[in-house]
Amino acid sequence: MERLEKQLDFALEIDKEKNVFRQTHLSGHGRNENDAEHAWHMAIMAYVLREHSNAEIDIAKTMLMCLIHDIVEIDAGDTYAYDEQALKTQSEREQRAKERIFSLLPDDQKAELSAVFDEFERGETAEARFAKAMDNLQPLMLNNSNGGADWREHKVSADKVIRRQSSTALGSAALYEVTQNIIEENIKKGNLT
Amino acid sequence: MERLEKQLDFALEIDKEKNVFRQTHLSGHGRNENDAEHAWHMAIMAYVLREHSNAEIDIAKTMLMCLIHDIVEIDAGDTYAYDEQALKTQSEREQRAKERIFSLLPDDQKAELSAVFDEFERGETAEARFAKAMDNLQPLMLNNSNGGADWREHKVSADKVIRRQSSTALGSAALYEVTQNIIEENIKKGNLT
Repeated sequence: MERLEKQLDFALEIDKEKNVFRQTHLSGHGRNENDAEHAWHMAIMAYVLREHSNAEIDIAKTMLMCLIHDIVEIDAGDTYAYDEQALKTQSEREQRAKERIFSLLPDDQKAELSAVFDEFERGETAEARFAKAMDNLQPLMLNNSNGGADWREHKVSADKVIRRQSSTALGSAALYEVTQNIIEENIKKGNLT
Repeated sequence: MERLEKQLDFALEIDKEKNVFRQTHLSGHGRNENDAEHAWHMAIMAYVLREHSNAEIDIAKTMLMCLIHDIVEIDAGDTYAYDEQALKTQSEREQRAKERIFSLLPDDQKAELSAVFDEFERGETAEARFAKAMDNLQPLMLNNSNGGADWREHKVSADKVIRRQSSTALGSAALYEVTQNIIEENIKKGNLT
């Protein structure tokens, strides 16, 4: 029973991820997106787009990775991909959060989920690379649908977007091509300079 | 390329699920929850709690089921579990929505995801039964954490909650016990009458 109680404590705690808001806006010039719905979107995209992964992937692990990759932001907050000051302290803040939040689980599950989280962070396996491609493509897709409004708001330069999105190539050559087309189109339209 | 375009059209369309709000409130007496973050929560809970399923489950399929089970509400809206008028037209509204939204995908994936959606609705397989247990437990857990505020707001009776939650027993005897304890405790406290 203690085991089940721990699992339920964890389940309730992660509810807080719905209160962590990102810089990305929903399609239709909607409100800011939160981490939980971003993760939901990534996991479905991973499933639907899995045939475009460069290497074969374990889809259950990839979806789980998508679902939990931002859990640490409950404590550490969202770090905007183009905020260079915040990026410096991101790793330390997220390590502390990882320890606290996954420690709510029984030990074996703490170890399992921490390992999946770390695997995503390192980005060395096929699953992590494909999940990272989703983490890049999902906000790019939303921002593109809104005429690049997020980039303009934060004055993000084309070369920074190109650098950030480059890791998609490791996960999926086909989706990287989509990415490049979206970026080129937005440069042409003056949404990205 | 046409195939990938269809997949991306579907991916963008489902963003709208983040705008479908439920009657359930987030923990900490937070705002109303939306369908996308509810589905995210269910999918992680399914993974963490899978050992409590009555029967062995394919966890990838169960998570996918959790993630897409409310997609039709983009068109059909959320039907509150205790709104008897709306429940009468729910099935027809949702069938139309299912046809439109999954038709954005390539035919094979339309068939695949529609089948997973239908499997959840029918609730006859181990995966569907466990996913339904998550669909029951997740809002119960949030509402319990808020002292039953959602039940009080809608004047929901204890016997209706007991009836709605009873299907959890088909998916997980252990989680059904948790459910019963939560309901009894809330009756004792006067949160549910």
